[in-house]
Amino acid sequence: MSELRGRKILTTLQEDGQLVVELAEEKLPQPTGHEVVVRVDAAPINPSDLGLLFGPADMNTADYGEGRIVATMPDGARRAMAARVGQAMPVGNEGAGTVVAAGEAPEAQALLGKTVACVAGGMFAQYRTVDARSVIVLPDDATAEQGASAFVNPLTALGFVETMKRDGHSAIVHTAAASNLGQMLLRITQADGIPLVNIVRSPAQVALLKDMGAEHVLDSSSDDFRNDLVVALKATGATLAFDAIGGGKMVGQILHAMEQVASEGQDYSRYGSSSRKQAYIYGALDTGPTILNRSFGFSWSVGGWLLFPFLQSLDAKTLEGLRARVRDNLTTTFASHYQARISLDDALKRDAVMAYNARRTGEKYLLLPNG
Amino acid sequence: MSELRGRKILTTLQEDGQLVVELAEEKLPQPTGHEVVVRVDAAPINPSDLGLLFGPADMNTADYGEGRIVATMPDGARRAMAARVGQAMPVGNEGAGTVVAAGEAPEAQALLGKTVACVAGGMFAQYRTVDARSVIVLPDDATAEQGASAFVNPLTALGFVETMKRDGHSAIVHTAAASNLGQMLLRITQADGIPLVNIVRSPAQVALLKDMGAEHVLDSSSDDFRNDLVVALKATGATLAFDAIGGGKMVGQILHAMEQVASEGQDYSRYGSSSRKQAYIYGALDTGPTILNRSFGFSWSVGGWLLFPFLQSLDAKTLEGLRARVRDNLTTTFASHYQARISLDDALKRDAVMAYNARRTGEKYLLLPNG
Repeated sequence: MSELRGRKILTTLQEDGQLVVELAEEKLPQPTGHEVVVRVDAAPINPSDLGLLFGPADMNTADYGEGRIVATMPDGARRAMAARVGQAMPVGNEGAGTVVAAGEAPEAQALLGKTVACVAGGMFAQYRTVDARSVIVLPDDATAEQGASAFVNPLTALGFVETMKRDGHSAIVHTAAASNLGQMLLRITQADGIPLVNIVRSPAQVALLKDMGAEHVLDSSSDDFRNDLVVALKATGATLAFDAIGGGKMVGQILHAMEQVASEGQDYSRYGSSSRKQAYIYGALDTGPTILNRSFGFSWSVGGWLLFPFLQSLDAKTLEGLRARVRDNLTTTFASHYQARISLDDALKRDAVMAYNARRTGEKYLLLPNG
Repeated sequence: MSELRGRKILTTLQEDGQLVVELAEEKLPQPTGHEVVVRVDAAPINPSDLGLLFGPADMNTADYGEGRIVATMPDGARRAMAARVGQAMPVGNEGAGTVVAAGEAPEAQALLGKTVACVAGGMFAQYRTVDARSVIVLPDDATAEQGASAFVNPLTALGFVETMKRDGHSAIVHTAAASNLGQMLLRITQADGIPLVNIVRSPAQVALLKDMGAEHVLDSSSDDFRNDLVVALKATGATLAFDAIGGGKMVGQILHAMEQVASEGQDYSRYGSSSRKQAYIYGALDTGPTILNRSFGFSWSVGGWLLFPFLQSLDAKTLEGLRARVRDNLTTTFASHYQARISLDDALKRDAVMAYNARRTGEKYLLLPNG
């Protein structure tokens, strides 16, 4: 191939506590072996990308130059991020595009010209070298934009359902349920006949999910929320929750309501019911502390849930089954919706940063690195 | 047998929110089948008993009459305790005494005159009818006082070690480690060669455990606590904690320090280390909320731990092994120490209640119902 040059976004936390986010030029080496070079046509800006890109830096007071942002990282966060100081880190978990160069391995050569989705990291770039064996080849009629979010959200939503089965539960509670991920989970559980309690934060989000046919949609901003939650848990028998928020009292409220349902009609026990109540925190829309009032006995567990360790815990056959389900339902069950499409240059401008870094539920941005 | 009459402590939460704790007379029916009647000679007042006996009622402003206390239960607690309203509940998880009457079954008859320990509930009484098959027969030279705490603390401490093995950890962190339970856990781990990090709350408690030969004893009131914790976790490799406190930030601090140790020398990952960090909350010395800052990635879990469900999860052989170990080491590994001994009458007097309900670590009271 002729020499490939492209631009990519790098984020560096400097020794002095300044966070520098900038566009950098790179020259891509000729791919060898199983390597292929993907021209990245679309990459979603996920909450997990924002954590690496900006973290808790103050983007409101940052200095926005030409292709370069300089922001101040709070002291507490600097200590927690000591391990990244001085490293220029590429960003962007996933994306999709066209294979424009390939190593000599047959698996790599076979991908030339194909549209593929990958979860290689560093996808906020015009070109990205990845392993041919790690991509999903999109169906012939699918666009890169349709495949851009084929990994993180779809496999997370499917992972919730697999976790439910593995842990012996039969229904799911989900917070921030109007998100792209939440909508996917709703469609999956509708297809599989799994009861789902959707918790959202506004009447508009209630309407959105109800329009999609959701049965249990609760508005946590409503005065009736606590009662509605008990009613929905009773109807579904849910003893498992996945929480995207992290901070605040929501997880504790859900466990409390589960305990209320489990205790109904039972003899009093000062240790609480024997119903196993589990909540997994998989996001940090609220980075404040998780506050548990422990008004739910002793039979409970709260823990972190993360996609990649979960995928590693699956056997190869189960994992391939999940990937095939995503590929076969890319434009239906696993369709994503985007608030706006932006270029690499736009992504570093103040207006865009303030908008996509607000992490508003259901307002996901799509980066078009070659757009 | 001649007719047996005795007194026992009952606790009743009334409809009007008043908590009544009183002495009541009872006539015990002739035991039948496998039943035996135990004359209770000694019963420890454990934190778990206090939860049922008084809960969060205000014992400071209570009315102390002759053999009868009337206290006010806070509104929030009343709602949580709705299932016990109107029921006169016996108290006292465990205790020991002499079998004075027995049903016709050979297993019951064989116990006549023996000193036994039981975990039948309702042990704050002069007499208690229990199932002959559920008791531990104490060695001939053991007193009831030595066997009074043969169940809850010993099996809890042994249960921590079993849980450690089951969950794949190799060392333990323990809070409120100067308690009777903590001292037992120390002796068990010394015998078994398991690294233990003891967290206590005063220099005097540090001295107590150091005198017992403990290697890692940390004072959470010390300015150096955070650093000391990291050093001890590094030395022991502990990724499992058992916490008696419940409320506050301690559990989160422990997980944070575990994550610090796990991340050292690793590449930065915004998802945290892959080290599985587990904390079990088994007590509620602080009934306030558990506050988790989640500064420890996504590979963590916090949950409740309770003795009886844990015992039920064991196979019969393992359980009998644990009970035999307790019986064989009753006056050494599993010895308990008591701050004071009190009668049933004294137990309902203001001074005694204020003292034993303070739940100070290492200041356990022993009830002598026939003393």
